[in-house]
Amino acid sequence: MNELQERILRDGKVLGGGILKVDSFVNHQVDPLLMDACGREFARRFASVGATKVLTAEISGIAPALTTAIHLGLPVVYARKTKPITMPDQVYLTLAPSHTKGRMVELIVSPEYLANGEKVLIIDDFLASGQTILGLARLAEASGSRIVGIGALIEKLFEGGREALKPLGVQIESLACITAMEDGKVVFGEPA
Amino acid sequence: MNELQERILRDGKVLGGGILKVDSFVNHQVDPLLMDACGREFARRFASVGATKVLTAEISGIAPALTTAIHLGLPVVYARKTKPITMPDQVYLTLAPSHTKGRMVELIVSPEYLANGEKVLIIDDFLASGQTILGLARLAEASGSRIVGIGALIEKLFEGGREALKPLGVQIESLACITAMEDGKVVFGEPA
Repeated sequence: MNELQERILRDGKVLGGGILKVDSFVNHQVDPLLMDACGREFARRFASVGATKVLTAEISGIAPALTTAIHLGLPVVYARKTKPITMPDQVYLTLAPSHTKGRMVELIVSPEYLANGEKVLIIDDFLASGQTILGLARLAEASGSRIVGIGALIEKLFEGGREALKPLGVQIESLACITAMEDGKVVFGEPA
Repeated sequence: MNELQERILRDGKVLGGGILKVDSFVNHQVDPLLMDACGREFARRFASVGATKVLTAEISGIAPALTTAIHLGLPVVYARKTKPITMPDQVYLTLAPSHTKGRMVELIVSPEYLANGEKVLIIDDFLASGQTILGLARLAEASGSRIVGIGALIEKLFEGGREALKPLGVQIESLACITAMEDGKVVFGEPA
């Protein structure tokens, strides 16, 4: 999506270690109109997959998942990373490595909100190694529901996430596909 | 707001210890159309305060703050509870007690996104003791910006938050004001 790509070129910052800093418009500070436009675009691309629920992981997945859910008119569930006291004792829980945290994090969903037969659209801010999204897919499968699509605002094609997600056999859409980040410069491309 | 109050009566659950469980439509699972309606209502009530930025705290403040920001056309910043590696070393940080976590949590905002002279509208899911919102107000003041309004989806009038926030001298709006939660029943009312 041109609007997001232009914003990354203008305001994104390439840090060391393959980190793209987008916290002036995606996480920490959010541009709500850009996020709304991204949600509308995801809703358009996934209009025909028959999703019944949007699933994401806290924290930075919430904004794009919420705007997508607004445009699809579907409930959105965000997996928690710590179990709140309002959650039942019996939950779906999996572990996924966090790139930006440098350790494993828990992804927890209450069985109250992920049920057998649900058709789940996963939306997240980044698709890098794909490990967070694979974790969400495991939670969905544990509940007896089925993944019907995966959307990410920003994909780092060179981190292999798309290959890791291929076995799920679903449509994968990224609004900005990055093929390289070198000398502080972001280069966009298309998945092979 | 009737829509939110009716939803609380229908789907909210009064747990022990003054906890109202609303994780089927506010946090964990979010009803995006209800949240959008709440954002529109906040935008209407705060239309004339001249806000330049919406501020909230992760995690469950993000959804109502984002929809409010969409309807006001303003950037939204969510205070982080752990410092991500993309954040500069020098930050605004304060501590606030978390009712649902039973301990102090950090609230952290990067000086990149909260600047001198900003007029800040604080939006959160709950107004209970007011301690999280007071923490956000301290962060705003530390940056040289000024609070111009405070909005909460759900206020527990009996926890004293409104009095605690009174010294800030700004308009406080809650979309559902709870005066009592007894025998599993929620009773709505108006602030005195």
